[in-house]
Amino acid sequence: MTPMNLPTPCALLDLQRMQNNIQHMQTRLSGLGVRLRPHVKTAKSVPVARLQQQAGSQGITVSTLKEAQVFFDAGFDDVLYAVCITPDKLPAVRALRERGCRLTVLVDSVAAATSLAAAQHDGHVFDAMIEIDTDGHRAGITPDNPVLLDVGRALVQGGAHLKGVMTHAGASYECRTPHALQAMAEQERSRCVQAATALRQAGMACPEVSVGSTPTALSAVHLEGVTEVRAGVYVFHDLVMHGVGVCRIDDIALSVLCTVIGHQAEKGWVLVDAGWMAMSRDRGTQAQAVDFGYGAVCDEQGQLINGLVMSGANQEHGILSWRDGLGDGAPMSQRFPIGKRLRILPNHACATAAQFPVYQVLGAAEGVQEWTRFSGW
Amino acid sequence: MTPMNLPTPCALLDLQRMQNNIQHMQTRLSGLGVRLRPHVKTAKSVPVARLQQQAGSQGITVSTLKEAQVFFDAGFDDVLYAVCITPDKLPAVRALRERGCRLTVLVDSVAAATSLAAAQHDGHVFDAMIEIDTDGHRAGITPDNPVLLDVGRALVQGGAHLKGVMTHAGASYECRTPHALQAMAEQERSRCVQAATALRQAGMACPEVSVGSTPTALSAVHLEGVTEVRAGVYVFHDLVMHGVGVCRIDDIALSVLCTVIGHQAEKGWVLVDAGWMAMSRDRGTQAQAVDFGYGAVCDEQGQLINGLVMSGANQEHGILSWRDGLGDGAPMSQRFPIGKRLRILPNHACATAAQFPVYQVLGAAEGVQEWTRFSGW
Repeated sequence: MTPMNLPTPCALLDLQRMQNNIQHMQTRLSGLGVRLRPHVKTAKSVPVARLQQQAGSQGITVSTLKEAQVFFDAGFDDVLYAVCITPDKLPAVRALRERGCRLTVLVDSVAAATSLAAAQHDGHVFDAMIEIDTDGHRAGITPDNPVLLDVGRALVQGGAHLKGVMTHAGASYECRTPHALQAMAEQERSRCVQAATALRQAGMACPEVSVGSTPTALSAVHLEGVTEVRAGVYVFHDLVMHGVGVCRIDDIALSVLCTVIGHQAEKGWVLVDAGWMAMSRDRGTQAQAVDFGYGAVCDEQGQLINGLVMSGANQEHGILSWRDGLGDGAPMSQRFPIGKRLRILPNHACATAAQFPVYQVLGAAEGVQEWTRFSGW
Repeated sequence: MTPMNLPTPCALLDLQRMQNNIQHMQTRLSGLGVRLRPHVKTAKSVPVARLQQQAGSQGITVSTLKEAQVFFDAGFDDVLYAVCITPDKLPAVRALRERGCRLTVLVDSVAAATSLAAAQHDGHVFDAMIEIDTDGHRAGITPDNPVLLDVGRALVQGGAHLKGVMTHAGASYECRTPHALQAMAEQERSRCVQAATALRQAGMACPEVSVGSTPTALSAVHLEGVTEVRAGVYVFHDLVMHGVGVCRIDDIALSVLCTVIGHQAEKGWVLVDAGWMAMSRDRGTQAQAVDFGYGAVCDEQGQLINGLVMSGANQEHGILSWRDGLGDGAPMSQRFPIGKRLRILPNHACATAAQFPVYQVLGAAEGVQEWTRFSGW
């Protein structure tokens, strides 16, 4: 089951690890009494989303209209487009809806809500959610901001369907302890529920309360008032999630297979044919307890080589070296000769996966399978 | 000529700026008496390479076998694969050569040279160059290392064709002054010539001496002993090259068109629909005099908005804000309302371009043209 003949670099997907990640998240959220609406931006691959659906997920979250289109064409008809909408994108949204896609859009301003409502010509009614800012990291309206009610009224009075509120606690990526993660999950939950309550008290229906990020989804103690959770990167996991503390290294399902192309003996460097074009430029572990450079190195079978990291990267060259004085002093060119294959675990699976047109899936009964993923907008 | 109707985010290519960049480099190198073998890894687009060829470039440099294949299929038959070769890639190399592609490969060790020679079954003779390390930044053999002669002999005695020596002074990206750039260019030239001289003195033919990087190519005072220069990113230029000091902001031909999707008024943030998936995670200006975050912001026509940068990025969200207290204090939501379009100049054109399947080319007589680019391996 070693992918000996695959040209390198290529993206390997460990089917069993991914299935475990999918099952673990689904079981956890079902136990908390909420639906799971996975974010498909991580894998951008229909077979991956089908496995999530088979495990019990309901609907999908997307970050681009292209994701909505590709997944709808593959049979996913309940789609939340979780980036605030602009007027220029509404014709494409409407076209998808008229083909049968239950596509919900997002707003976080009176201006956007008003233009959405104004675009409902010929009796078409858009489904919209309001983005709530529960952690200050990006977009959304804070739950105590009176603008929230103005946005709700602009939607309702404009004839749009206010489906609910949603938030994403992206700040959870900065958490480092179980206590901080639980507190962030509770902050995300409580503030989003607070926003829903404010809208309801002002007389507006707000059926859905959607929260989520992989760290908070895996840390929440309870989710009272929440109807659904969104999470994405859990499907593959990565070194950043390991650094946050919500997965083990051995849960990481995505890796980049590469080949040793040379050495710089006196520097202790091994050069491989995967650089930042393969790994992405993401350096997400730089601010964490263990900085893995551009990735952590495993042998060809996927066993971590403790302490060996991709310490530098050019476009198609990766430089591997021991971090923090680890390593046994053996000559690199003997231990890792030219032609030897290694796997690199990614800092950020969403960014690394995006560099590849296909996944080489390991662990299927049929041998190595090729699953396509798409990119672009 | 404003690309009003293009869905965002998309990659814009300013044809006139690119043509100027191509002409400037070609004129400079022709004046120095050397050939230009452009590195096509930046644009990965056949029409771009054709413009370089029309301007006088000879042959191309590639960083992947896929680049070699795609460009050979498009008629480019003189190709240097500038990443050290491994035995597993030789069948693909040979297949291309047997189709008529003059594909030269690279080695920097006795092991690689020996296995290359050993793979020459059925009388096939590979063309090979030896990679020289002139700045310590990556691969190659230093010119005074006796291993250089061993590698040369392993090639020649093994029956391979030793075409010459090549180097890439990637350390030039760290230079910040014209003096440092000239010194680095001279270091790259003199050490590569030194390597060629050593091989010749040992009785081996070494016809080609290939050097290059965009900063050194634009800074070299003379190139005695050099036969060709390789450079890539000059075709588009970017903020990193601006920070190095080898282009003006107005030379940057690549930008990402995006749309304003929201604001966080109290933070002075404008949110746009281009995040790191569009810009890449490259933060190459972080260590330079001006840190542009994930990119410098221009208006829709391409005029720089001085001081406005993409200070933060999520996958499909960019956060724009004024750096260093610049900005006029006007409310962001009035100056940059939802739906307004902006262009973002990239830190690193190679990384940003790689995120897009096509370039929207502005400035052609026929209006906006779509030029495909490829990715993957």
